[in-house]
Amino acid sequence: MPEIGIGIIGGGYMGKAHAVAMSAVGAVFATSLRPRLEMVCATSAESAERHRAAYGFARATADWRALVADPRVEAVVIAAPQSVHRQIAEAALAHGKPVFCEKPLGASLADSRAMVAAAEAAGVANMVGFNYVRTPATQFARRLIADGAIGTVTWLRAEHAEDFLADPAAPASWRTRGMANGAAGDLAPHIVNCALALLGPVAEVMAEIETVHKNRPGETGIEAVTNDDHLQLMCRFECGAMGHIYVSRVATGRKMGYAYEVHGTRGAIRFDQEDQNALWLYVAEGPEATRGFRRILAGPAHPDFEAFCLGAGHGTGYQDQIIIEARDFLRAIETGLPVWPTFRDGLEVMRVIDAALASARDRRWTPVPPA
Amino acid sequence: MPEIGIGIIGGGYMGKAHAVAMSAVGAVFATSLRPRLEMVCATSAESAERHRAAYGFARATADWRALVADPRVEAVVIAAPQSVHRQIAEAALAHGKPVFCEKPLGASLADSRAMVAAAEAAGVANMVGFNYVRTPATQFARRLIADGAIGTVTWLRAEHAEDFLADPAAPASWRTRGMANGAAGDLAPHIVNCALALLGPVAEVMAEIETVHKNRPGETGIEAVTNDDHLQLMCRFECGAMGHIYVSRVATGRKMGYAYEVHGTRGAIRFDQEDQNALWLYVAEGPEATRGFRRILAGPAHPDFEAFCLGAGHGTGYQDQIIIEARDFLRAIETGLPVWPTFRDGLEVMRVIDAALASARDRRWTPVPPA
Amino acid sequence: MPEIGIGIIGGGYMGKAHAVAMSAVGAVFATSLRPRLEMVCATSAESAERHRAAYGFARATADWRALVADPRVEAVVIAAPQSVHRQIAEAALAHGKPVFCEKPLGASLADSRAMVAAAEAAGVANMVGFNYVRTPATQFARRLIADGAIGTVTWLRAEHAEDFLADPAAPASWRTRGMANGAAGDLAPHIVNCALALLGPVAEVMAEIETVHKNRPGETGIEAVTNDDHLQLMCRFECGAMGHIYVSRVATGRKMGYAYEVHGTRGAIRFDQEDQNALWLYVAEGPEATRGFRRILAGPAHPDFEAFCLGAGHGTGYQDQIIIEARDFLRAIETGLPVWPTFRDGLEVMRVIDAALASARDRRWTPVPPA
Amino acid sequence: MPEIGIGIIGGGYMGKAHAVAMSAVGAVFATSLRPRLEMVCATSAESAERHRAAYGFARATADWRALVADPRVEAVVIAAPQSVHRQIAEAALAHGKPVFCEKPLGASLADSRAMVAAAEAAGVANMVGFNYVRTPATQFARRLIADGAIGTVTWLRAEHAEDFLADPAAPASWRTRGMANGAAGDLAPHIVNCALALLGPVAEVMAEIETVHKNRPGETGIEAVTNDDHLQLMCRFECGAMGHIYVSRVATGRKMGYAYEVHGTRGAIRFDQEDQNALWLYVAEGPEATRGFRRILAGPAHPDFEAFCLGAGHGTGYQDQIIIEARDFLRAIETGLPVWPTFRDGLEVMRVIDAALASARDRRWTPVPPA
Repeated sequence: MPEIGIGIIGGGYMGKAHAVAMSAVGAVFATSLRPRLEMVCATSAESAERHRAAYGFARATADWRALVADPRVEAVVIAAPQSVHRQIAEAALAHGKPVFCEKPLGASLADSRAMVAAAEAAGVANMVGFNYVRTPATQFARRLIADGAIGTVTWLRAEHAEDFLADPAAPASWRTRGMANGAAGDLAPHIVNCALALLGPVAEVMAEIETVHKNRPGETGIEAVTNDDHLQLMCRFECGAMGHIYVSRVATGRKMGYAYEVHGTRGAIRFDQEDQNALWLYVAEGPEATRGFRRILAGPAHPDFEAFCLGAGHGTGYQDQIIIEARDFLRAIETGLPVWPTFRDGLEVMRVIDAALASARDRRWTPVPPA
Repeated sequence: MPEIGIGIIGGGYMGKAHAVAMSAVGAVFATSLRPRLEMVCATSAESAERHRAAYGFARATADWRALVADPRVEAVVIAAPQSVHRQIAEAALAHGKPVFCEKPLGASLADSRAMVAAAEAAGVANMVGFNYVRTPATQFARRLIADGAIGTVTWLRAEHAEDFLADPAAPASWRTRGMANGAAGDLAPHIVNCALALLGPVAEVMAEIETVHKNRPGETGIEAVTNDDHLQLMCRFECGAMGHIYVSRVATGRKMGYAYEVHGTRGAIRFDQEDQNALWLYVAEGPEATRGFRRILAGPAHPDFEAFCLGAGHGTGYQDQIIIEARDFLRAIETGLPVWPTFRDGLEVMRVIDAALASARDRRWTPVPPA
Repeated sequence: MPEIGIGIIGGGYMGKAHAVAMSAVGAVFATSLRPRLEMVCATSAESAERHRAAYGFARATADWRALVADPRVEAVVIAAPQSVHRQIAEAALAHGKPVFCEKPLGASLADSRAMVAAAEAAGVANMVGFNYVRTPATQFARRLIADGAIGTVTWLRAEHAEDFLADPAAPASWRTRGMANGAAGDLAPHIVNCALALLGPVAEVMAEIETVHKNRPGETGIEAVTNDDHLQLMCRFECGAMGHIYVSRVATGRKMGYAYEVHGTRGAIRFDQEDQNALWLYVAEGPEATRGFRRILAGPAHPDFEAFCLGAGHGTGYQDQIIIEARDFLRAIETGLPVWPTFRDGLEVMRVIDAALASARDRRWTPVPPA
Repeated sequence: MPEIGIGIIGGGYMGKAHAVAMSAVGAVFATSLRPRLEMVCATSAESAERHRAAYGFARATADWRALVADPRVEAVVIAAPQSVHRQIAEAALAHGKPVFCEKPLGASLADSRAMVAAAEAAGVANMVGFNYVRTPATQFARRLIADGAIGTVTWLRAEHAEDFLADPAAPASWRTRGMANGAAGDLAPHIVNCALALLGPVAEVMAEIETVHKNRPGETGIEAVTNDDHLQLMCRFECGAMGHIYVSRVATGRKMGYAYEVHGTRGAIRFDQEDQNALWLYVAEGPEATRGFRRILAGPAHPDFEAFCLGAGHGTGYQDQIIIEARDFLRAIETGLPVWPTFRDGLEVMRVIDAALASARDRRWTPVPPA
């Protein structure tokens, strides 16, 4: 089986997740390319070497330019901060290499547009890492809606709520500095992408955004927080449905509150990532007396489950979402065909976020800007 | 024990609920007044007589003026349509009689203001029937928040979602005619009242309102729907918290989706009326490893539960909420002191609804008008 | 509408519940008899008078013989301790009066047999108070099973678990004295009755019974506990299904853990009284991908719900179960026809309990004794 | 980092799971040995070669003796049928090689005893594959109980319920032939091991076992089923607690119903593998009004979670359990110290199963036989 040399830029949380995924994907799925952990890049030579040893890469570097240029690196995974997504992606694409970029696509709408242009010009595989939509349950929800199982959609409510900064005494950190790391910059892309995946494009938004805890203890005294803690937006989808999205990092008690509820004329769907192996489906058919939301356990009858386990209810987890992404990236490389979500799909998300920020600033309904 | 003669105007759904409550309240609670079902009023003499016999009233009438004027009727319960709330209440109050009025208070902000003025001028007991906030669970939630159990509140999400008109083929009826019977007029007052009870006054709102199914089969052909199917609003509470409220009668699968979630700096609360005997509480204390939302079953440790049953988890239901209201109304009469929610509290709700309608029309953030 | 004079013996927990029920039942249901609270009996004249005033009875007495003999008492509700059920019932039946007896039927199998004989000889209405099977959800579960909705039943697991004596430091009381007040005597009848209602007669049992906390602080020092804290039994139903029942008063965290799970060849049912307005149903039909346990909210489509509320999910509670019992008792009186559960049904329960106690003593499978 | 050559016997369901685990474990955990997929053995050369290619092994064989003898195979994973566990394990151990054996340990109590003797004589790492106890939630439950968080344990109820043979029309297969493949042989070991892990040794059991569907369509007509569909057992633990275990493959609607509930004098724990990232804990402390079962989401504060993800609620799945087993097996090899569950722990399980079969046959309480 042909191998493909993988280079990963970033050795932290997401870098590790992709390294594990690339180690496991060949055994999990019937891929026709088998990834080889060729090179890892981190911010210093020491940490790069540490990641190399820990994850089993052949080589390490502190220079991402070396990585993208290396002939044995045949595909690039960007798990570095948002601010450098564009330059790395452009460089890798310039070398004609497929690129998988962690979400969100670029640090701005302009960056994102440039990345799409570069990827489409290069004509190689390009994907964005919205892992949460990869659960068998959410993939199935998407399919159910597309197939009309709940009729015409009239309402979506979605949220991405965590509580990692709910404590007002939590110290200032990189997370409390810069719009890219706030709720709108860091968390919102996931759930906006989910909303787009389920209902299609958004036409306009009306948003409100807030820094709940305006100061936090810093290393040298009180430090001002320069990004947002939570935001909400009302929206209108192009399909006509009304919607609402809430995003928070101060949602006390919520750990992975990536959740949605969709109403249609013939049914409804509910999901919460905190119970990611279950999808709740209501179908308005049969006698009233036996109607109810049913808790469907993810199983072999749902997308991408069977590769992990033959029994329903046995469950997939966070890491498995990344393995599914890796399979798709390999498939995109192998077939030369676009695999969702491409950079262009990532740009769709950035357009909505951009409109939301403008709306919150202007306090008015704001159309989503053009691609 | 002294008796008090009760007159109920309206013999339908809510009229029955109040008749049952007045029959049972004396045995359930230690009231010092015992209600006597004196007279029931309905739209025709026949239906009034039928209700009299069914619920055990002494007398029946088709003339509400006769009822409010009758000397043996010592307290009046208005369970008639919203459009007549004001005139009935004013007449009863003019007779110096205590009035319990079903929600919402008046058919308009102006009506509601007039009713408050009349009640305060009369100086007698006056209450509004927001029954859902009477569950032991929601009463306890209100107390927890007031006591600071979840710290400073930063976010409220609430909804009142039902599906009785989710089917586009459901026929036109009184429910699809007139703003008073739409989602904003009929359902929103309940959950707006709940939000006010939990977090206090709302300062401004940004709302969107929609008729999803614009036409329905009528008796003589297709009939235009003249009120709204669902609405959402973002709001800012005077306490500083941000909020969102959704109200729908087309929320497929939701039967009694009166639900809320409140985040505070030290904890969070979740509730859904579809499981009305449970309150979910998260408190950010103790080791991280043992933190989680706890499902607290309503019991004798919670407000007004013990009168119904000595064991936690044995459960109260819809009718019990009305019995609690009856107890409060009798207590207000007996003590001469205002008991929440008074007409003035009902007016608070109408102010928010009024602002929401204006906001949806103007598509802009709108301050809540003065009382 | 004809009235019927009700006499209630016992003014405590259950006495109150029946007094409330008799006050409300006429307004809730379309009964053709309207109960009149004629007389209440308690252990002293003072407490009887207190109950009379609190619940609204016409008269009070400390002599149950006077109550059953009183000509204005036309039907008797026994809410007194198990030890006196037989003598009171026999006396009331000797006067030709209908009797509603709280569960369990008698203090022993012999007592229970005698009570059935007396009731059948008198030929008047006789019922036992197993209130928990009266929820709309459990009534519907019973109907579903009877209708074959889940196919042939193969397994039942049921429990009645509470925690009121889970704390080893809880003091000795009447609850810790005498078999009638232990888990087997006081709690087991409820869930055994439920199992019989759902699956029919039990053929044999294999039980284990235990006093977990053998001593408790008494008023004058340590006191030995003379009844059981929990028990379990495996059983074989006559229909062929295998089953298991667990009963406990030391089930820490369980407040009203009256719960069951029934497997059939085509479906399954799950229920927990701690969420009494929901029934979980799984039906093995349709595509595998959309199968799941559905949470059905009790509503007008289910037995006896509509009288309390027209909307699904609005919920009934503990007190409503007693009102349903009152309706059935009145109906039995009015029609002269037996209404489930009669004394004979109560005897069925006692037979199973009796077999369980024998089995636990002998440590062997034990057939249920004849009626 | 030193490598270790892994040989896996069996390329089906569990063989694949172990191959994936061995591929990923080095990147997930900080192991000091890095596994190398050296050889896979299957029942035919063709299938072995297919598995080799699919999972990335270096070599394939249809002869397990060749595998265990191969010098480059340094550790052996047995994922073959129960009937050959003993002979393979003995052969591998005779070569001085560490052995990981899928559950249950041996095909009989005698086989299991022999395997323990062989393993202890060889003095090398030996483990049994009870994967479900490896979830962070169940590991944490075990720790909580051991630490006394719920006080003295008084009751355990556990079950392993699936529905893969619930349909009476499902055809005969290897699953319906031979005791090793029935509920007692195939499923019970998992949950018995769980019960032992949580509460310690079982002293005696009283079991009932049954073939619900006695005949199934076979390839050449109706075929008799020669093993059991479900079983239950009451038990007494050596610690004094009473318990009940139910095991079924005909539990309609249950997909991965590996669930338990443990009561202690100060708290309780509930778990269901169908929601494997949540543990429910009740602690009887603090005001009654705020007590309740809390749903704790598995996270970095719980055993073995952090290696998969830094955020609570992000979830682990089935495959991750096998990765945790692989880490433990490598650790046992590396340290030379026994890592739970060893073959001896596997033997403990077989003793309980053996007693259960004897008890069901004799219909009497049966002590667990000696090791």
